Amino acid sequence: MRGFEPSEFAVRTQGLQAAMMAEGLEALLLTTEADIRYITGFLTRFWESPSRAWYVIVPARGKPIAVIPSIGAALMGTTWVDDIRTWRAPDLTDDGVGLLSATLDEVLGGSAGRVGLPAGHESNLRMPLNDFWALMALRPERQFVSDGDIFRYARSVKTLAEIDKIRAACGVAGRAFDRMGEVLVEGLRKEDYYRGFQRLCLEEGADFVPYIAGGHGEWGYGDIIAPADDSQITAGDVVMLDTGVLLDGYFCDYDRNFAFGTPPRQEVQDAFATLVDAVDAGAAAAKPGARVSDLFSAMDQVVTGGKNSADSGRFGHGLGLQLTEWPSLIPDEHTLLVEGMVLTLEPSIETTADGQLLVHEENIVITRSGAEFLSPRASRTFKVF
Amino acid sequence: MRGFEPSEFAVRTQGLQAAMMAEGLEALLLTTEADIRYITGFLTRFWESPSRAWYVIVPARGKPIAVIPSIGAALMGTTWVDDIRTWRAPDLTDDGVGLLSATLDEVLGGSAGRVGLPAGHESNLRMPLNDFWALMALRPERQFVSDGDIFRYARSVKTLAEIDKIRAACGVAGRAFDRMGEVLVEGLRKEDYYRGFQRLCLEEGADFVPYIAGGHGEWGYGDIIAPADDSQITAGDVVMLDTGVLLDGYFCDYDRNFAFGTPPRQEVQDAFATLVDAVDAGAAAAKPGARVSDLFSAMDQVVTGGKNSADSGRFGHGLGLQLTEWPSLIPDEHTLLVEGMVLTLEPSIETTADGQLLVHEENIVITRSGAEFLSPRASRTFKVF
Repeated sequence: MRGFEPSEFAVRTQGLQAAMMAEGLEALLLTTEADIRYITGFLTRFWESPSRAWYVIVPARGKPIAVIPSIGAALMGTTWVDDIRTWRAPDLTDDGVGLLSATLDEVLGGSAGRVGLPAGHESNLRMPLNDFWALMALRPERQFVSDGDIFRYARSVKTLAEIDKIRAACGVAGRAFDRMGEVLVEGLRKEDYYRGFQRLCLEEGADFVPYIAGGHGEWGYGDIIAPADDSQITAGDVVMLDTGVLLDGYFCDYDRNFAFGTPPRQEVQDAFATLVDAVDAGAAAAKPGARVSDLFSAMDQVVTGGKNSADSGRFGHGLGLQLTEWPSLIPDEHTLLVEGMVLTLEPSIETTADGQLLVHEENIVITRSGAEFLSPRASRTFKVF
Repeated sequence: MRGFEPSEFAVRTQGLQAAMMAEGLEALLLTTEADIRYITGFLTRFWESPSRAWYVIVPARGKPIAVIPSIGAALMGTTWVDDIRTWRAPDLTDDGVGLLSATLDEVLGGSAGRVGLPAGHESNLRMPLNDFWALMALRPERQFVSDGDIFRYARSVKTLAEIDKIRAACGVAGRAFDRMGEVLVEGLRKEDYYRGFQRLCLEEGADFVPYIAGGHGEWGYGDIIAPADDSQITAGDVVMLDTGVLLDGYFCDYDRNFAFGTPPRQEVQDAFATLVDAVDAGAAAAKPGARVSDLFSAMDQVVTGGKNSADSGRFGHGLGLQLTEWPSLIPDEHTLLVEGMVLTLEPSIETTADGQLLVHEENIVITRSGAEFLSPRASRTFKVF
């Protein structure tokens, strides 16, 4: 089934409203794709266009209210939201700011009130600064403040329906990874195995493939965020692909390391086995009541003996409506794990060749009895294609 | 060739610095993918992750300075930027704000200074609000103001090297559109022709296909921003696909309307011919010295007789590093066209069936002698697959 039952959004909204009350917020103002989709179900690729701003207000009681460009009214009308107010955008004189301010007046019963905005790490304000400044200037007595991170916390704990969607996205990528042998040939360029893997993901049911990272080499790979280029694979290389596949608006985010032609040198095999062991250690530590930092420590113990020298800055992160979400698996993040959090376990290790590393990543969900793997778990030995 | 010569970025930077002086700005602060890539060449899909903030400062003189997470240092080091300052992100205590503020102190020669940020329509601030507030609080005497839209204007006028990249992206989509007959079969679901078209784009050389819109039906199609679903095509339908294909970081953005099985009813054929005529009228009006609003008027005259009733709100937009960029083709946008602006011409027309419309889109560049089409121009009659 695509989408969610309306009751799902009602539960999400009520949970947020309880947190809003605790935080002393009379309304939330949402502006980003993921936040708006979380609370309304509004799913479209149209966010790829930065031209239009989209606003959703969560009042203290009742359903969210959409204040959006008229081009989105029909689609928003298919969601559980009933109160949809529109303007014809783009409007160079007033691109929805007056309508948004008037709607806040109505929701807050006057020109004051305390409005929360997602403002912590992982968040951003998807509206032009000039319009944000104008919104504040229209009602100087109104407070626009941080939401105290209640929204990112709410999003981090997934419902069963959300977990099913992430599991399905993981399945798509898993079937595509299994078929990489159809793509990899001696001399293939990086840009072509990136394309080939995307094609396989689409054939296996992905809606979109917004993210690919990867690399190849005898000793691992270098910069995994660099774009694809014309460097060629050769027998004995490790080939890594890390993907963010979208299915019904939810991401998976994990990678696979393959050996091309022959198994790579023993040191590289050993390094990879260490990463798989680290993921196992992270998964073993992942249960309700443990802290996010415990997962980092468990993996770091295996990889570096506890030195905390991960160049990537972290060993995993949240996952769901976005490729990466709060929290980050770092030593300072002491948030308690609860049932329903979906996380990536993503340790990395340097090999002895300068600047070369290996990364291994799996996706898990925290259940009452511990970690359940959503990605098909990799074995300690390289699959050779 | 992928990327650009360093001289390209030097010219872009010098142009901006002249505009900064006229605007009274001592530095620009950039935070978004497109703005940072425009001035540095930093190309990666890693922006799909919202977890890390990235900053680039354009000083009044000299090269841009990058203040970025250490995970990006190697890739930024391959660009023309030499001054790269990093922190290990995410850092829950100070996620780069202190480093950014200290770098601004150095660039501005003290704790004051006037810093411009892209703040108008199409822009947003890609950093957490808490961090923006902290940055301002660290230096209360420093002014953070709108850049006066100089950055979006600079980006709207493309160099020959940029135009070549957009032309190449248009070519990829054109070859994929030509092959749609390989995909379309009776009863095919919308989600499957979306996937099939993406596969063709990848086979024809796309790096990524971040955007697809479309629809099908006897009388045109309804909501073009809705996600793909399981509705099926049948003989006599019009099938429309609108794509944003990425090649080396540049987009095309145009659509094709096909007839499936047989030509559609005469009224639909006539409506489509009207749209092609409207694009021709828009292209005829597109030359240096004309205004953006003139393009809207020329097309609107053909489509509605000058009633300005476009439900989409506009009849096209800028194009380049993003799927849609400033300016919008609307009656109120009186910016003068100059050589090098790349635009989409995108008129839409309603058919007599309730809520059904047709959209036609081409991509042009403004040259000294008028519009040059970057997309392979569609004919007035439907191609039947």
